[in-house]
Amino acid sequence: MSPMSPQASLPGRYGGTRDLLPEAAAARKEILRTITDTFERFGFGPLETPAIEYAATLEGKYGPDAERLIYKLEDGELALRYDFTVPLARVVAMNPDLQRGLFRRYQIGPIWRRDRPQKNRYREFVQCDVDIVGVASVAADAEIVAVLTACLENLRFAEPRTRLGNRKVLNGLAAAVGAGELAEEMMRSLDKLDKIGENGVREELAQKGFGADQMARLFEITGLEGSNLEKLAAAEASLTAPVAAEGLAELRLMLECLAALGVPDDRVSVDFSLARGLDIYTGPVYEIEVPSLKTPSIAGGGRYDRLIGIFLGRDIPATGMSFGLDRVANAMEELGLLPEPQGKCRVLVTVFDQSTLPASFRAATRLRNAGMNTELYQGEGGLRSQFGYADRRGIPLAVILGPDELAAGTVAIRDLRTRKQEAVAAGKLVDEVLALQG
Amino acid sequence: MSPMSPQASLPGRYGGTRDLLPEAAAARKEILRTITDTFERFGFGPLETPAIEYAATLEGKYGPDAERLIYKLEDGELALRYDFTVPLARVVAMNPDLQRGLFRRYQIGPIWRRDRPQKNRYREFVQCDVDIVGVASVAADAEIVAVLTACLENLRFAEPRTRLGNRKVLNGLAAAVGAGELAEEMMRSLDKLDKIGENGVREELAQKGFGADQMARLFEITGLEGSNLEKLAAAEASLTAPVAAEGLAELRLMLECLAALGVPDDRVSVDFSLARGLDIYTGPVYEIEVPSLKTPSIAGGGRYDRLIGIFLGRDIPATGMSFGLDRVANAMEELGLLPEPQGKCRVLVTVFDQSTLPASFRAATRLRNAGMNTELYQGEGGLRSQFGYADRRGIPLAVILGPDELAAGTVAIRDLRTRKQEAVAAGKLVDEVLALQG
Repeated sequence: MSPMSPQASLPGRYGGTRDLLPEAAAARKEILRTITDTFERFGFGPLETPAIEYAATLEGKYGPDAERLIYKLEDGELALRYDFTVPLARVVAMNPDLQRGLFRRYQIGPIWRRDRPQKNRYREFVQCDVDIVGVASVAADAEIVAVLTACLENLRFAEPRTRLGNRKVLNGLAAAVGAGELAEEMMRSLDKLDKIGENGVREELAQKGFGADQMARLFEITGLEGSNLEKLAAAEASLTAPVAAEGLAELRLMLECLAALGVPDDRVSVDFSLARGLDIYTGPVYEIEVPSLKTPSIAGGGRYDRLIGIFLGRDIPATGMSFGLDRVANAMEELGLLPEPQGKCRVLVTVFDQSTLPASFRAATRLRNAGMNTELYQGEGGLRSQFGYADRRGIPLAVILGPDELAAGTVAIRDLRTRKQEAVAAGKLVDEVLALQG
Repeated sequence: MSPMSPQASLPGRYGGTRDLLPEAAAARKEILRTITDTFERFGFGPLETPAIEYAATLEGKYGPDAERLIYKLEDGELALRYDFTVPLARVVAMNPDLQRGLFRRYQIGPIWRRDRPQKNRYREFVQCDVDIVGVASVAADAEIVAVLTACLENLRFAEPRTRLGNRKVLNGLAAAVGAGELAEEMMRSLDKLDKIGENGVREELAQKGFGADQMARLFEITGLEGSNLEKLAAAEASLTAPVAAEGLAELRLMLECLAALGVPDDRVSVDFSLARGLDIYTGPVYEIEVPSLKTPSIAGGGRYDRLIGIFLGRDIPATGMSFGLDRVANAMEELGLLPEPQGKCRVLVTVFDQSTLPASFRAATRLRNAGMNTELYQGEGGLRSQFGYADRRGIPLAVILGPDELAAGTVAIRDLRTRKQEAVAAGKLVDEVLALQG
């Protein structure tokens, strides 16, 4: 490298990616700690898969619209992971041990999508996933909803609510209205009910060729009112296809399990219109909402019993959910819930001048050995600018060891919040700092 | 997606990348917790930069051999980060706030190198970096060595030792032997001293055109014996170029600061031959070793006062170190130091049959609400196979709620380590499990 580049060149940062400076990064780390603790509280263990996958692993799994968003490298042979579900399926297919029984795991990390960047949508973002592999019963789906609910509660979101649907009920509904080959189109339109309203959906369906009778039958079911059990009873009476009955029985079992898992019935709404775009879903689907948010939906998931089979040649049931850390962090900011990071620096040991440097270094070492997060000031400037630095960094206490203090065998401790400063015997440094931390 | 893929296709995993199953991933998570806590104990805050950088940001910074190892995407416009040092320099150059004073940060995450995979060398691996930006004094370098030493001690490595060199001393040495344009070649050969020995270095230097007199002068300095202060004194008497004197004074100050930071002199060896390949270094360089390891070197770093200037057009001093998580994790495994993960699952709540499912769900919820990491068994099979599952997962306790227990208002708790099982009143479940956890 030349000693000094003749022309500086700063290419900048790629759109849709971010730098998180320490304050923002520390808040996220704290959020992730709560999320991880909750996942582990429910007995899930961490799985890590690489960012780089063979492109062939990802291709053909997400549908053509999504597939265009996959980043490729090495002439298209490799790709950056687009989610954690397909890599999970690959891992299960590659590990016979994971195919025999039960496999519960969480995964947290960045994923990449070559999307157009916009507010709250990034090209590189952190996603949090929890899945249970090897269980056909929707009791597993209920536990996924429960861990997600607990997660949001532990992050102090008030009253997270679940909208609960089932793809089998939608299939039965498609049969009942005679949607035929338009079944998927019907679900796609219906899925927008909460975004474009009933009239919007009616318009779309009319354009797709649905008749008035079909729509009447459709909205009779999706428009059912009353308690969850009342909706289920009405749908059971109306939808007679075996696949619908199966889906409705799954919804009943899920509600029962959710209640036993501490998610009460009034926090769950059966919603027959919910499809969740992704084609991989085969049974229960759900979205979790925080009503006090401007955009309430915060996470979702469902059952995908056929994905692993694409890799393995035989199906293994699986269910899980995912949410984006940004969505959660932004929601917490919106509601004033951002946590105080545990790892924050609590004390700045100032440096009076070169001659007192070793004394300051020794004081910092004592505080650190006592378990206190302590910065040793390494910059330029006198005490006043060092206090200013601590203020800007949000460090509440400053330790001062000037020639006067050293001569007297004392140390001064300044509380930058109250601007009170007091001298204590040097030997009392750790105790006093601990006491002032409260 | 078709209901069942006619031909399963499993592309496998890209060479040099890994899947970390929960046990391995949990152990690493624990190691990272210790590393992060130590970094924060020293007052460093987290920085996060994206995996994807503009290729132009990385190009021209690492030398041609390394540059070939950078993964490119999007027709070469973008690249995957190759380390954290160059991204840090970009972040500082883009943020005027970070240019004025002091910026201390750590960064931990995956980086990518398109290398040939081999034992302990991966194409995607986690690196841990700590840097101080904005401080010209080598007091900052001493603190970096101290945080790295504390890190290894907190991971329970015995007596980590530091080899400490200085590029300015090497420059002075090159001047003293009259290396001229071969100065960098001289350092490159000298840097291999601990790998190929003095004879190997002599051979290389002879091929490069160094004469016997030059080599005698060279090895007179690098072969100096005695205490650190004795070596420094001898070198000061022998090397008279101002740049050498500056480097030697820096080494003196670093030793003084290290002692004040609790790193005693007998854990540090001044080593005038140490260059550390990377061209970016401008002052102190060091490597930390754990003597009990087969390959002792575990981490290293140094000062790079000219890197930020390439982006910014004016230099800002900076210093830091990095190490690979794999190197540390493998070393801990070699020495039997791998920690027990804190987040491990402690209890398996078994499920007797469908009728007792809600009772088991409620028991799991009580244990979780009491803060215990609890798995609810969601698989197939009777109690015996559920105990087997818990054993394989390393879960020490199983909770049993069969029809007998439910009728009697009790719950059975089985310690899978001792195979002892006892029934307690249902209301005592949480207390008993807590007591058995010890």
